[in-house]
Amino acid sequence: MKIAILGGTGKEGAGLGLRWAAAGHEIIIGSRSAERGAEAAGALRARLPAGGTVRGMDNLSAAREAEVAVLAVPYEAQAATLAEVQEALAGKLLISVVAPLGQPRSRVWFPPGGSAALEAQAQLGEATRLVAAFQIISAEHLKELDHVIESDVLVCGEKAEDRQVAVELAEAAGMRGVHAGPLQNTPVIEGLTAVMIAINARYKIKNAGLRVTGIDNERQRIDAN
Amino acid sequence: MKIAILGGTGKEGAGLGLRWAAAGHEIIIGSRSAERGAEAAGALRARLPAGGTVRGMDNLSAAREAEVAVLAVPYEAQAATLAEVQEALAGKLLISVVAPLGQPRSRVWFPPGGSAALEAQAQLGEATRLVAAFQIISAEHLKELDHVIESDVLVCGEKAEDRQVAVELAEAAGMRGVHAGPLQNTPVIEGLTAVMIAINARYKIKNAGLRVTGIDNERQRIDAN
Repeated sequence: MKIAILGGTGKEGAGLGLRWAAAGHEIIIGSRSAERGAEAAGALRARLPAGGTVRGMDNLSAAREAEVAVLAVPYEAQAATLAEVQEALAGKLLISVVAPLGQPRSRVWFPPGGSAALEAQAQLGEATRLVAAFQIISAEHLKELDHVIESDVLVCGEKAEDRQVAVELAEAAGMRGVHAGPLQNTPVIEGLTAVMIAINARYKIKNAGLRVTGIDNERQRIDAN
Repeated sequence: MKIAILGGTGKEGAGLGLRWAAAGHEIIIGSRSAERGAEAAGALRARLPAGGTVRGMDNLSAAREAEVAVLAVPYEAQAATLAEVQEALAGKLLISVVAPLGQPRSRVWFPPGGSAALEAQAQLGEATRLVAAFQIISAEHLKELDHVIESDVLVCGEKAEDRQVAVELAEAAGMRGVHAGPLQNTPVIEGLTAVMIAINARYKIKNAGLRVTGIDNERQRIDAN
């Protein structure tokens, strides 16, 4: 699959791009500047074991080429980025990994529209299908290809088949994806990022995550298909 | 510890009471009607292996006798229950297990005050310390004493020593409690109940839960003390 990561120069986007490229997907790193996009793509290529396709360009060109796009910009840059790429995303699936944080970062804060994903969907309208996922996955863990990530990926979105794309991309990146309901549930899956930061601070750890108990992998695989 | 469970005739409160009584705590089941409280207490006593102290009474009498109180009423009954017991709770710790749900129950819904716990704290004022915990723990699992519950208990509250009481009560009930930040994080830990309901529906299971990854028990024990 040809996946454009808008804001893919950031840690989270780059980590996901690295893992997806290693799994055989064609990755496009989007950035505000085409140069920085290309630079980040080069850095990822150097870390891939056996080649892998990673290119870099500006966000708009990346969105145009994408089969699936991933929104990995800081929340503060979301509205401006989406305004720029809106037309290029029409008819496509956008996976938002954005996790808005307040001050201090360990206290849950909700944006005016309820969540970053709900705001993105409102801005993009029905032409683009939106799914939210990967918010609490540690960028530190993603970038080490051989690190086994214990955390699951909670996926919210209106349609099961759209969520399923993110579930399968979670699997491609070495994690388990879990269907977690509609976009209305995104304040919680985004807000968990602050809760994980609070847990990290309390237990002096770096990468708290969450695993869903009560689902076995076998059942998940059956229901997913 | 003498623990009053307000609304302890409900499934969640009764399940917690059963496990805490089995662990040696003195349990008081509170109900709107003293009769129904006594009845529910009798039913719990019958299910306890070796005696255990469980009594039942009306909510106000229960709150008066409590060292620690647990709020286990449906969200819709919360404000009226708190108004009734407010004076009796002054100077005490109240653990809220309330999880407000909208329609359908699998979609996150926040009460006007942000969360049930934030509304309870606003209503009770500073005289009562509030902690939120146990929202996503399945009542079905609690009531079977030999069932090993995999889910952790996320605990939010302003003060670490108050959260610690709930963490230890989680352990007494056979689970791991995890400090998850201040009351401002309660919209997320309460909202996870709807997310778990969405996951249950999707995977045709009954008792999805969450386990925090990245904390080992040993470290937790050290930091807790």
